[in-house]
Amino acid sequence: MRGVIVEEHGGGVHRVPAAEHLALTSAVLTDLGAPPGPAREQAEMLLEGDLRGHASHGIRRLPVLAERIAHGVLDPAAEPEPVWRTDSVLTVDGGTGLGPPVAHRAVEALLARVPGTGVAVAAIRRAGHLGMLAPYVERMAAAGVAGIATTTSEALVHPWGAAPAMIGTNPIAVAIPTAGEPVVLDMATGSISRGKVLDHAARGEPLPAGAAVDATGSPTTDATAALDGAISPFGGPKGYALALVLELLVASLTGTALGRDVRGTLDTTEPVTKGDLLIAFAPTAFGTGTPLDPFLDELRALEPAPGHHGVQVPGDRARAVRARNLAVGVPVDRTTWEQVRALRT
Amino acid sequence: MRGVIVEEHGGGVHRVPAAEHLALTSAVLTDLGAPPGPAREQAEMLLEGDLRGHASHGIRRLPVLAERIAHGVLDPAAEPEPVWRTDSVLTVDGGTGLGPPVAHRAVEALLARVPGTGVAVAAIRRAGHLGMLAPYVERMAAAGVAGIATTTSEALVHPWGAAPAMIGTNPIAVAIPTAGEPVVLDMATGSISRGKVLDHAARGEPLPAGAAVDATGSPTTDATAALDGAISPFGGPKGYALALVLELLVASLTGTALGRDVRGTLDTTEPVTKGDLLIAFAPTAFGTGTPLDPFLDELRALEPAPGHHGVQVPGDRARAVRARNLAVGVPVDRTTWEQVRALRT
Repeated sequence: MRGVIVEEHGGGVHRVPAAEHLALTSAVLTDLGAPPGPAREQAEMLLEGDLRGHASHGIRRLPVLAERIAHGVLDPAAEPEPVWRTDSVLTVDGGTGLGPPVAHRAVEALLARVPGTGVAVAAIRRAGHLGMLAPYVERMAAAGVAGIATTTSEALVHPWGAAPAMIGTNPIAVAIPTAGEPVVLDMATGSISRGKVLDHAARGEPLPAGAAVDATGSPTTDATAALDGAISPFGGPKGYALALVLELLVASLTGTALGRDVRGTLDTTEPVTKGDLLIAFAPTAFGTGTPLDPFLDELRALEPAPGHHGVQVPGDRARAVRARNLAVGVPVDRTTWEQVRALRT
Repeated sequence: MRGVIVEEHGGGVHRVPAAEHLALTSAVLTDLGAPPGPAREQAEMLLEGDLRGHASHGIRRLPVLAERIAHGVLDPAAEPEPVWRTDSVLTVDGGTGLGPPVAHRAVEALLARVPGTGVAVAAIRRAGHLGMLAPYVERMAAAGVAGIATTTSEALVHPWGAAPAMIGTNPIAVAIPTAGEPVVLDMATGSISRGKVLDHAARGEPLPAGAAVDATGSPTTDATAALDGAISPFGGPKGYALALVLELLVASLTGTALGRDVRGTLDTTEPVTKGDLLIAFAPTAFGTGTPLDPFLDELRALEPAPGHHGVQVPGDRARAVRARNLAVGVPVDRTTWEQVRALRT
């Protein structure tokens, strides 16, 4: 199961109970000055990253957060400043605080508002890295609300037709409530994560074709050459165009940075300049909707095409990976785990 | 210039002045019972399709509209019924009328409302084919409003991992206003249009790799085999997931059909069951935005990667193609042109 594999940093994979993962990261964050609530919300999001097999959004981020706090560019006790600018537009200054508490306050505000307005948007600036986006839209879907979340990120992706990294991997998550489990898309608009490029380079393994270009802009499967180049957008020119309009939409509505000026989620010294956008739709406010489950079940029941194992509805695999990791232990890189334990002293 | 090429139906390409194109299609639509205003708006959208080099959204659609009217499944004189369900949610029953007049009334309503609400959504059902989506979001951008338009369409695309066509080519258009020309994305989530597959099959030319599968679900470049199979989503599993969540979002908010139940834009006998969603954001309601033009100009000025001609900002190419076709004449298939002229008698 692809999602179970954790990217190793050389120390091998260690499985820890979810409660232990949460307790350790919460304690570290509290030590670093985060109040208990925000510490818990940040810790939960690091756990979600590892539970879903996305180590780059898991506990591996904690040392970066610790350094950002030490350098004074992340304030773990910041209070977000939400302002309703209209009945359905919320802007939030995160005060350079931890991302998850800021985003969770925004989701709560949207969920309180959107049954009445039908649509509501939160535009967030100066908040730390949100982690996986899926949990925020899943929270909306659990309340019967369709949600979209998107965010800008450091320029790692080249525009179609040129070599330099100028666009973020700008992920987008969408959750649609159904009678059963929600449909949940959570994807980066880059072909591959930088973490995977680093891991492939460390192991000397080739990248998938089309995943990256070298410094001249020529496609390469050499991960080391890709580190001097850029990640390719998924889906060629269409993926580039999608990544770009997401970046422009977020910057337009949040007043945050573009391209190479986006900073503060990978580095440890720069004030955060990315933005986050959350959009909520209450289907009940639109009148009679359409039952989605029969169609989704029809997709799931299709005979697999040659070389495939069948059709996944977005969110199905992540749920399965998460459930399995909850049962057998959260996969974490052993070196990272020891590094985080050392932060407690 | 790729967009200038018109798909031929065997009669060769004919260039006509835009005014002549508009006059002929308007007259045909008026003959068919459309009031002058709606006839003009439908005619303009057919012109936009041909002007931008997308013949499948151009005058070629007019005989289909005529047959739909003859079969009583399209009412060219329908009055749309818009209802503001909240301050920022508009639902519109198009009354089986022509699509462009319905969508234009919705855009006008959104533009009147969104400066105050910051965000507004129109959910449209029972409207005919809208044509290209770009002009609607361009109209929003011209008013300083960021727009998203998406629509469901007949199932022509296979879900990732199975053979049958179960999902629409579900296009999405996004326009972001800038100090200069807007950034305009307008793309289908299918790899290729059905019109292109038909044309390739007629010419015996191979499809691009990855564009389609045969009846067993195996990738094929044989256009004839693809006609018995399905179009592939752009960008592999990510493109599939994106197409699917767009389809679910539209169906959820408009109360329209899913998958194979989506009808009425390609056929001539079925009542329309697709839905359309327009979302408008007024950046001014969100506070201070970010100037976008310096970043866009930086992208345009990048040195081309090997084998490329440089970076396009979405919308740049379509504007250039449109301007050229306005100057030299609108490309139309000669057989189609004669077919439409015959509709006047």
